[in-house]
Amino acid sequence: MSTRLLGVGVGPGDPELLTLKAVRALEQAQVIAYFAKAGNESRARTSAARFLPTGIIELALLYPVTTEHPVSSPAYQNAITSFFDNSTALIASHLQSQRTVAVLSEGDPLFFGSYMHIHKRLFGKFQTEVIPGVTAMSACWSAAAMPLVHGDDVLSIIPGSLSQAELTRRLALGEAAVVMKVGRNLAKIRRALIDAQRIDDAVYVERASMDNQQIVPLAHKTDDHAPYFAIVLVGTPWSTHLAYAA
Amino acid sequence: MSTRLLGVGVGPGDPELLTLKAVRALEQAQVIAYFAKAGNESRARTSAARFLPTGIIELALLYPVTTEHPVSSPAYQNAITSFFDNSTALIASHLQSQRTVAVLSEGDPLFFGSYMHIHKRLFGKFQTEVIPGVTAMSACWSAAAMPLVHGDDVLSIIPGSLSQAELTRRLALGEAAVVMKVGRNLAKIRRALIDAQRIDDAVYVERASMDNQQIVPLAHKTDDHAPYFAIVLVGTPWSTHLAYAA
Repeated sequence: MSTRLLGVGVGPGDPELLTLKAVRALEQAQVIAYFAKAGNESRARTSAARFLPTGIIELALLYPVTTEHPVSSPAYQNAITSFFDNSTALIASHLQSQRTVAVLSEGDPLFFGSYMHIHKRLFGKFQTEVIPGVTAMSACWSAAAMPLVHGDDVLSIIPGSLSQAELTRRLALGEAAVVMKVGRNLAKIRRALIDAQRIDDAVYVERASMDNQQIVPLAHKTDDHAPYFAIVLVGTPWSTHLAYAA
Repeated sequence: MSTRLLGVGVGPGDPELLTLKAVRALEQAQVIAYFAKAGNESRARTSAARFLPTGIIELALLYPVTTEHPVSSPAYQNAITSFFDNSTALIASHLQSQRTVAVLSEGDPLFFGSYMHIHKRLFGKFQTEVIPGVTAMSACWSAAAMPLVHGDDVLSIIPGSLSQAELTRRLALGEAAVVMKVGRNLAKIRRALIDAQRIDDAVYVERASMDNQQIVPLAHKTDDHAPYFAIVLVGTPWSTHLAYAA
């Protein structure tokens, strides 16, 4: 139980937004692991790059290509389960060799992060620690200078992958919301916001804290192209008038 | 517009959970300001203490004692508005003297933080920047090794100050939730969780990331004493069985 599995939140993109604790963890690890799509660089690795010791062992865990299967299908679920099983085995072999393994996680490891799938497979077998990080949504509302909630307000964090009807129903409640996983869902999210009469409360944020950060009222964005990690902030009339104050 | 107002997130308590950017901001500021209750130390200042340069000017902003007025009363609202007006004037006087002022904020400045009240009064008059931080809720679910959401899950962040009926209604939806502002509301939150049949999904976390951190299933906590900044994590059956994996 002495070797350590670390889930390390590396924050929203700007390397300056790593915590001191995350930097120290990277300096002490013998192995770093990170998830990525084949052919794409890992955003988590890019954020952490300047802190990685020379000669550290790198373990890139490449998501299987599953676009031919719907997410709810058994074929997809089997492919993903096998992927996390195999990734866990690779990490475990390093831990068994007494190497500390830091799994780099964009934002915060347990906030919609893949790290949880490694953690649940290895707890009890190795010492584990989760190092929280700054989430992308915090970077977004900070960049927009747009507080979403105060006092007794409720905040809902909603994946953009939900159905349009479900998005509309939730947004029509009139509460503050963060819509995650925007990407290919932006046209649907826009329609839901219009149907819910919330489009004027919505601010689109892309690449918050990074170069080429973009912040625009969603109503002013003239296309529906968005990267996966874009976020739509949905304020209340109270919060929306404070936006763009930075 | 050259002097700077900085909203600096100092994270959940552990000084190691400040970001590199926050540390640099504190090193460059001429003035730090922080909110506190009279007679209490500022938790934000405690988290940041080791990074404060010798001789930095400190501005403690002490909340007015308003316990004699209900939060919704005009008397309370007037007292709070005057307090933020006066705090803003104190900060503005330093900015006018070309001093950079860092307002220390527990967790993340715009996530239920008082900094927003300063920001909205000064934007356009001075250059401003918000530096996001690790939230207390991230520290809580990291300490408990309890991911609340994955895939298409929705997460609701709910102030414990809502009525018992409203808490029960929201918790009965069966979704993942973070109940903030626990403190004196814990007995009410517990009753709402029982009525919503969610008590077994609830984990109580106090002082996450700090000395004397406490993590316990709420059903096993035998009293209803809690500090203001305690949090109740409400998982789903999926996430709850992963708790205590650290």
